[in-house]
Amino acid sequence: MGDDGIEQQIAEFVCGLAERELPDDLVHAVERCILDYLGVGIRGAQHETVRLLDAWITAQGDSEQARMLGSGKRCSAANAALHNGVASHVLDFDDTHIPTILHPSSPVCSALLPAAQRSHATGREVLSAYVAGYEVSARIARALFPSHYDHGWHMTGTAGVLGAAAAVAALHRLSPEQCVCALGLAATMASGLRENFGSMAKSLHAGNAARNGLFAAELAALGYTASPLALSAPRGFLPVMAEHSNPQLIVDGLGEQFEVLERHSVKPFPCGVVLHPVLDAVCQLRRRIAPPQGEEVTALVATVNPYVLELTGKTDPQSGLEGKFSIYYTLAVGFLRGTVTVDDFSDQAVRDAAVRAWMPKVQVEVDAQRPVSHAHLAVIYRDGHREELTIEGSKGMPESPLSDAALRDKFAGLVTPVLGNSAAARIEQSIMSLPEERDFADVLDLCCPGGK
Amino acid sequence: MGDDGIEQQIAEFVCGLAERELPDDLVHAVERCILDYLGVGIRGAQHETVRLLDAWITAQGDSEQARMLGSGKRCSAANAALHNGVASHVLDFDDTHIPTILHPSSPVCSALLPAAQRSHATGREVLSAYVAGYEVSARIARALFPSHYDHGWHMTGTAGVLGAAAAVAALHRLSPEQCVCALGLAATMASGLRENFGSMAKSLHAGNAARNGLFAAELAALGYTASPLALSAPRGFLPVMAEHSNPQLIVDGLGEQFEVLERHSVKPFPCGVVLHPVLDAVCQLRRRIAPPQGEEVTALVATVNPYVLELTGKTDPQSGLEGKFSIYYTLAVGFLRGTVTVDDFSDQAVRDAAVRAWMPKVQVEVDAQRPVSHAHLAVIYRDGHREELTIEGSKGMPESPLSDAALRDKFAGLVTPVLGNSAAARIEQSIMSLPEERDFADVLDLCCPGGK
Repeated sequence: MGDDGIEQQIAEFVCGLAERELPDDLVHAVERCILDYLGVGIRGAQHETVRLLDAWITAQGDSEQARMLGSGKRCSAANAALHNGVASHVLDFDDTHIPTILHPSSPVCSALLPAAQRSHATGREVLSAYVAGYEVSARIARALFPSHYDHGWHMTGTAGVLGAAAAVAALHRLSPEQCVCALGLAATMASGLRENFGSMAKSLHAGNAARNGLFAAELAALGYTASPLALSAPRGFLPVMAEHSNPQLIVDGLGEQFEVLERHSVKPFPCGVVLHPVLDAVCQLRRRIAPPQGEEVTALVATVNPYVLELTGKTDPQSGLEGKFSIYYTLAVGFLRGTVTVDDFSDQAVRDAAVRAWMPKVQVEVDAQRPVSHAHLAVIYRDGHREELTIEGSKGMPESPLSDAALRDKFAGLVTPVLGNSAAARIEQSIMSLPEERDFADVLDLCCPGGK
Repeated sequence: MGDDGIEQQIAEFVCGLAERELPDDLVHAVERCILDYLGVGIRGAQHETVRLLDAWITAQGDSEQARMLGSGKRCSAANAALHNGVASHVLDFDDTHIPTILHPSSPVCSALLPAAQRSHATGREVLSAYVAGYEVSARIARALFPSHYDHGWHMTGTAGVLGAAAAVAALHRLSPEQCVCALGLAATMASGLRENFGSMAKSLHAGNAARNGLFAAELAALGYTASPLALSAPRGFLPVMAEHSNPQLIVDGLGEQFEVLERHSVKPFPCGVVLHPVLDAVCQLRRRIAPPQGEEVTALVATVNPYVLELTGKTDPQSGLEGKFSIYYTLAVGFLRGTVTVDDFSDQAVRDAAVRAWMPKVQVEVDAQRPVSHAHLAVIYRDGHREELTIEGSKGMPESPLSDAALRDKFAGLVTPVLGNSAAARIEQSIMSLPEERDFADVLDLCCPGGK
């Protein structure tokens, strides 16, 4: 790729993907991502947050050109991307690019779905476009991390919109020049503040990233222009968005090494990924000790990386969404029930008296030497004895990925209550053999109640 | 307002405006703003950039609920706000809040128009809502300036979306709690990179600010939540968006002193406001000297604040939009023609051979001691003699505002070619007596070809 600028090198990668034969392991990894995305999104579409968003979409008097994931309704393609993004992120159950805490599939797939539906894309085209979106957003996230995230930006909103634009640019076979404009337009719409974590605005970041990425790619396809240096120029995206950015991480090995193969994580629990090691610990501990009786346990002491407490330090969550950002609430649930599910994050669930009474026993200590993917947990009993467990790389992390069977179980558990067994099985079958799918719109029909 | 946080104080101001009697000078100032906005937007809607955007909007298969300024078409309210914002900013002819280089009317009015149309708002309601939008965006801009702007953010996109949200929140009489959420949702969508100046993406910032501000206010009205501290918290909008922000400037004198009365500027020239002093100088100079013959002028030397060259230093503009960011091109046009008009910024105009041949004679020197509103110009002749002029506060600046007559002339000059004399006169009459208008939707009908 030689001396071309960052933007040009990204565009050449994105625009070249459709012509490439993807290796089997990459295809399989992407199939897993899309299946997980669909499960989380179909179930997420039933959330109150999405109901409110959809009321807004309906009030736009929209067209019926695109399906809304997990919903029986239709709307414009842009608003479908918005809906899909909120639906797939609202449960905090969607996948993670571990080194950057980017959630790549929500913005990327949410933009891809309406684009693929309208163009009747094949499964192979969707696979290639997904790879474009994942790699671009994950690599840009790596170039920005950690100063960008520490500063207060929500990576899924900011790097996500560039991934969404790249995915649609790949699907619609934009020229490299158009792709550069799509990236420049996406960059100039990137936003999302971490301060909004715990409110409905958090999932809106993913929705906006999907909608704006689709918008950027479609505008660029029409000839709408942006600066060709919108990422790398002194007042471009990278320097503006991060005090210290490393653009070289975007292009090193681009097209040869794949982030989705090396640094991807699927969530077993529906809450912030930084809570997963400690949740994994509490669930494992509960399996090996007797259920605690009465007051015999006096404290549950978690030792975690400081990030974990910074992100999930809410001591008095008032809503399900806030509960996801409370290590106190989630650990209490995990210890009392032995697992943590979607139902534990309803507004009603976080007011459960038994859990609230138990929360003060959760104590958190921070240890900057401990990686985010590690955690230590101690259960302290009234008689003074302790049970301890250390987790180094919890279930779902790149070093111990969910098995295909566990991933299918997660999907079925999320989707069956919404669509029933039969549709869930048919979606799973289609996605896990995606290169054979002739029209992705048919799969999307299956993902919507009453769709087929 | 006491000890309430910044967000709460803004919300109380916004939500209280509808109940207030606005003083006559404020009403008159806002009438002037809205008239100028409509003129610039109706003409801007004819620009190629807007044609491309509208092709995207049409492809959404949108509803016909809202009028698109200066167009015979209709679309959804959100897309109308988007269209209006791009149309009113693409000519770089819209008004300016001088201390911050914020262009307030484009995002604020562009969101207000479809909201007022759908609710059949009165002229008085539109006036109050405009004041909410102007003051909130201009005061937030002051809190962010200069570090935010220097860093690379386009104020019209970032502070603009908060103004648009505030205006719609005021118009739709949101509760203070809803208004706080509207601000938090708007803040989390704020974006726009200065690197995109000179491309079509620049005006998209204003369009996105309008669309997202309307979206934020409407979502909040439905009960969609955001952090109540989304502006002021350590990872909220103000600290994230500016290395040095001064939140106190948002609330000092809020509701008592009005930025629109004290720091507002209407543009006499269709290009970046920082070019106005030097353009004013060149046009004045040309009036007092004989038209230059042949090669007798060897140089035109402009001395300006460094910002001017930083923003308008393009030496080889390739499009009309780039021409607006070339001090070399605009000064050459001003010197050769004695004025600079909308027609000088077509893609064809910037390729004019006579102007291109003259551009190398334009020399620019920077002087950090000279305010942005000042400029010095020297014409240097072959025989060694010089003509010089210093401008300290050019036409249109707060210290020498355009007269009502000049403002009306600007409006008529922009609108008559699109809508004809009669409609232009009727719009002017309605806007300049806005408190008497019973249904703003009627005015908007006049602003669209074939509307009435």
